[in-house]
Formats: sequence, structure tokens, C-alpha cells
Amino acid sequence: MTDPTPLSPRSPRAVLIDLAGVLYVGTSAIPGSVAALQRLRAAGLPLRFLTNSTRMPREPIAARLRAMGFTLQADEIQTAAHAALNLVRRRGLHPRYLVHPDLRDEVGPDAERPDAVVMGDMGPFLDYAQLNAAFRLLMDGHPLIAMARNRYFMDADGLSLDMGAFVTGLEFCSGTRAEIVGKPAPGFFHDAVAELGVEPEDAVLIGDDLHDDVGAARAAGLRAVLVRTGKFRAGDDAHPQVRPDLVADDFSAAVDHLLAHG
Amino acid sequence: MTDPTPLSPRSPRAVLIDLAGVLYVGTSAIPGSVAALQRLRAAGLPLRFLTNSTRMPREPIAARLRAMGFTLQADEIQTAAHAALNLVRRRGLHPRYLVHPDLRDEVGPDAERPDAVVMGDMGPFLDYAQLNAAFRLLMDGHPLIAMARNRYFMDADGLSLDMGAFVTGLEFCSGTRAEIVGKPAPGFFHDAVAELGVEPEDAVLIGDDLHDDVGAARAAGLRAVLVRTGKFRAGDDAHPQVRPDLVADDFSAAVDHLLAHG
Repeated sequence: MTDPTPLSPRSPRAVLIDLAGVLYVGTSAIPGSVAALQRLRAAGLPLRFLTNSTRMPREPIAARLRAMGFTLQADEIQTAAHAALNLVRRRGLHPRYLVHPDLRDEVGPDAERPDAVVMGDMGPFLDYAQLNAAFRLLMDGHPLIAMARNRYFMDADGLSLDMGAFVTGLEFCSGTRAEIVGKPAPGFFHDAVAELGVEPEDAVLIGDDLHDDVGAARAAGLRAVLVRTGKFRAGDDAHPQVRPDLVADDFSAAVDHLLAHG
Repeated sequence: MTDPTPLSPRSPRAVLIDLAGVLYVGTSAIPGSVAALQRLRAAGLPLRFLTNSTRMPREPIAARLRAMGFTLQADEIQTAAHAALNLVRRRGLHPRYLVHPDLRDEVGPDAERPDAVVMGDMGPFLDYAQLNAAFRLLMDGHPLIAMARNRYFMDADGLSLDMGAFVTGLEFCSGTRAEIVGKPAPGFFHDAVAELGVEPEDAVLIGDDLHDDVGAARAAGLRAVLVRTGKFRAGDDAHPQVRPDLVADDFSAAVDHLLAHG
């Protein structure tokens, strides 16, 4: 392995942790990560868990992680849906939501006179009437806020069409440009550090995706640790443009380094 | 009015006639157009009626026009759906069709092992499962043939999202580029003249849309008459790039000119 580049001398005051590929893969915790999270908590560092989930609310995500042995609360998780709600609150918007029924309780009811469209992954619940209602709001000049622009995802029965299709389609027909709130948007990281009461440069992110975690966090002013698990591919730790502040074999090694040198 | 530019001296041997805005507006025949079509038929010129309809089969389109007083048969009409079927036949494809239920009889059943996706306007019958099945065929390298890429259309209750949203979305997610078969594709005009057994330069199109009728027909090698009805807007007859071979006040005047000078 490459020797880890030391982090900058300034100690991190908060840690953001990407979920899939860092803490777990599939339905199993990555070896050592449950104990490593306990060590990190024992050190008293405030934490946020990040996921680009656009369909599932925070409570079942937390429950799934607890079932793998992790200790965490729903309100420590930042999802793309949660980031969209933060943005709605900050701007005082009254959206119509195009979201999966599972997410409806988290976003609340649609406004009677909507002044924005907020779009998540509706999965099989997508229909023409909802898209057309959104289209008409966009044609009236209201903004389109989308949780993500992903092209596809791996479903149980194969590669499947993701919500990027509908974001792009609505943009094309209405002439509106969507604002994407999930990773890699800088606001996604800024939201998380703001909730923890620290500045971006005082926070460190631990992620497995060179571009959407590490590159995006660094572009947002945070430091970033790349782990060699999950999406990590050989060569990610020697990319000419995107350079993590630290490369660690896994979450456990990353935590050890942060606690020893951070 | 501008004096009509005379058509080139070569007599047209076939006439293609755009439907909406040329023969009728809404549900009414444009004054003089029923009689003008009779004069054109009496002159013995072979005819094709063109429409970018991606939802309705040819028989009900013909029936609607007959109800306005026009004499025409379903098989004289070229729709975007019909152009897609011609292309499927020419290439020996076995498509999965994403079409409105009204069009299902015209296209026939889906192939058991599809090697192409043919997409029309499904209107409210669009659903995620169908789009995802199409997406998977595209990811397997099969082509996407789309009847149109329109952004929106005027429905009874207002401006509505058109199929361009789903064509563009599937393209974005699959990395495939759709082949559009409706106007303004040159093949749309070539299909029509081929069925009439004449060369493009021997045919003349009469249309109300400067770009999708006149410009597209001329780009396909036909001559084109622009009428000042339907979509015609002031200045269309003096466009710096798109120049009709003839500008006429309406279909009746266009027919008179063709019969007198054509």
C-alpha cells in the first residue's frame, strides 16, 4: 500500500462519513468498522453520516445500520432528501413533491399553491400526471430542485433507470435547469458541517468514491480521506487531479489515523 | 401580401399536404380547402397527407377529416407512427413498442426477443416499468427509434409535457442517441414520395410550419409551399434562411397556383 499522506496539522473538529462502501457493503458491516465507529464516538468528535438516498427516509436507514451493529441515530444522517428539505426551508419555498410514497411523511404534504418542484426517485410510482403537473409549474417559472441526477442503479433484478431520466426530460421540455442538492453538490457538505456548527475546513470526510465523495468534499473546502473499500478501484489513490488528504485501507484504519494524528 | 415566388418550371408529379393548419384548424376545415382538395384530385396528382401524430392510428385521423368534408382514405395518410413501421420493416427489426394503447393494433404485438425500442407518445399510459424495460434494451446495445422529440403540446386543459421528455431521458441514462422518424427527419418525406413512386424533386409539399414543413421538405430535396394559415406567423415569408418555393394565402390559393403554373 501507499503510505498515507498525513492530514494537514489542524485537527478535525467534525467527521462526515459516507455510508455504503465505507461502513458496509450490501447488508454486511465492513470488518472492523463497527468497533472503529465506537472509537470515533469515544473521542467525542461530532459526526454526520452521508448518503445520496433519494427514496428512503432517515429512520429506516438508521435501523438498517443498527441491525449491522452500528450505533447511530436517524438525525445524524444526511440524505439527499434531507438536503432538499433544508434548502426548501432556507428559501421559504412551498413545493410540490415528486417523491416515493416512503418519503411522503418526511417531506410532508404538497403546498396548495406550489412555488417549486422538489423531485426524488419515485421508482415504480412515477406517472405521467405527476410529471405533467411538475412541467406546468416549471413553465410558470418555478424552480426545479432535484435530489440527484443519477443515470441508473443496480436493482435486485438488474441495472435500472434512475431519476436522472426524469430530471433531464423535464429540463429539456421546460427549458429549466434543475438544481441538484445531493452529492457532489457543495451545499450537501456545507449543510452537514453547518448542522455540526463547524467550518468546512475544520471537517474531514471519509468516503469510497474518489469523485463524488473525495473530490466533491475537497471542492467544498473540507479535507477528505479515501478508503480502499466499496467503490474504490486500483489507481484511485494515484489520480492526477483528485488527491485525497489521506488514503487508508478501510474505515478502521482511517479512524486510527485520525485519532493518532488528527 | 408578397407576390408568390413562382415554382420552378418543372411540374410537380405528386403533392404532400400537411394536415393541421393547412386543411383545418381545431375541428373546422379552413374555408375553401375542401373544394381545393377536390380540384387537386380532379387534376389526377397523387397525394399524401402528412401528420406527426404519434398517438392516433390512421383510420380515426381519416374519419375526423371526412367529418369536416374532406375526401381521403386512411392509407393516403403518413403519420410518424407509420414512418416508424416503415423503418422497422426496411431494417427487419423486432421492436418492443412504447406506444399509446390506441396505436397498439397498428403496430402489432411486441417481439418476444426485442432487438429495438420504438417509442411514441404514451400519454397518461406511460409508466416506469415500460421505460425501464426500454432502458435495459438500450443498455444491451439495441437502437432507440422515436416518433418525435416534441417538448410540449396544447391539451384540452393546457400546455402538456410531450414525449421528448422521455426520449431525452432515456438517451441521457443509456448513452444512446435516438433516431427520430417524424418531421423534420428527411426520411419522413422520402417515405411519402417513395410510396407515390416519384423522386423528391418531383414532389411539392404544402405546409404551414416554416421550419418543420417547409425547411425540412426542402432539406429533403422537395419543393415547398408555405401557406399563411395555422402556425404561420408574420415574417415567416421573409425568413433570411428558410425560403419557400412559393408563399400562398391558404391551401386553396396554393392549389390554384400549382394547377395554373405547376
